[in-house]
Amino acid sequence: MTAETIRSGPERQDHVLALLRAQHAEVWVASASADGAPHLVPLSLAWDERQVILSVERRSLTARNLTSAQRARLALGTTGDVVLIDAVLAAQVDVTEAGAELTEAYAGQADWDPRQEEGGGAGYVYLCLTPERIQVWRSLAEHSGRTIMRAGQWPT
Amino acid sequence: MTAETIRSGPERQDHVLALLRAQHAEVWVASASADGAPHLVPLSLAWDERQVILSVERRSLTARNLTSAQRARLALGTTGDVVLIDAVLAAQVDVTEAGAELTEAYAGQADWDPRQEEGGGAGYVYLCLTPERIQVWRSLAEHSGRTIMRAGQWPT
Repeated sequence: MTAETIRSGPERQDHVLALLRAQHAEVWVASASADGAPHLVPLSLAWDERQVILSVERRSLTARNLTSAQRARLALGTTGDVVLIDAVLAAQVDVTEAGAELTEAYAGQADWDPRQEEGGGAGYVYLCLTPERIQVWRSLAEHSGRTIMRAGQWPT
Repeated sequence: MTAETIRSGPERQDHVLALLRAQHAEVWVASASADGAPHLVPLSLAWDERQVILSVERRSLTARNLTSAQRARLALGTTGDVVLIDAVLAAQVDVTEAGAELTEAYAGQADWDPRQEEGGGAGYVYLCLTPERIQVWRSLAEHSGRTIMRAGQWPT
């Protein structure tokens, strides 16, 4: 048994940003259908310092659920070193209609580029998600203080 | 680049069972509220060779969502070595009313025991989940053949 380290708020914020900025970062994305069926898939992500950007097929359950419910819950890290992000859908943009800022942000960080898919990615969309609440903990000792973003605001 | 190994169905089944049987196994549990809000939390699990057993506070969002929707989607492993389980709620049992088979199965595998909580675990329930569909993949090359359980049945 080692003593459990309790990270400060700023340390936890740095941890989240490091995970969000990591090259080829991946995230568990939970969404829900209108009738209460949960969905969960691993996806690549990009982070533009404001939004989490995902890209999925337009017909995927994740895209359909987010179009309908407008929100997702994301998990980064592991079950033993947890980062959970409640996020709202800010925009859904067709890959073939997206501007350079979005396409380059995604292609520059994710490990694939939907524009390489059939028809220049005609079947794909970008989902831009704005974090509203972020929770970070590694152990029971860190449960207090685990909410490091509330109402979309980092602590000032 | 190494050649990607494509595991057989039986190899993937062995992988799932090894994760489910692991001491102190943990799982991401996605559930949904009746109005389509996704929830996602890491939980300890036990596996009795038929059901995944979780234990949570009765008032938790996970318990309330499962009571209402009767289903969850579970992720084991990592975003790069994926096991996804769609499961239905077979039983919700108060910790203080559970039989020895259930309490011992959970306490024997999970890293905590709800009976140690206040009032002998009076605020806690066991959630017993029956897998209906299991998907396993590590790479795009394994997407074909990723569904290794359908309609609750392992392949025979």
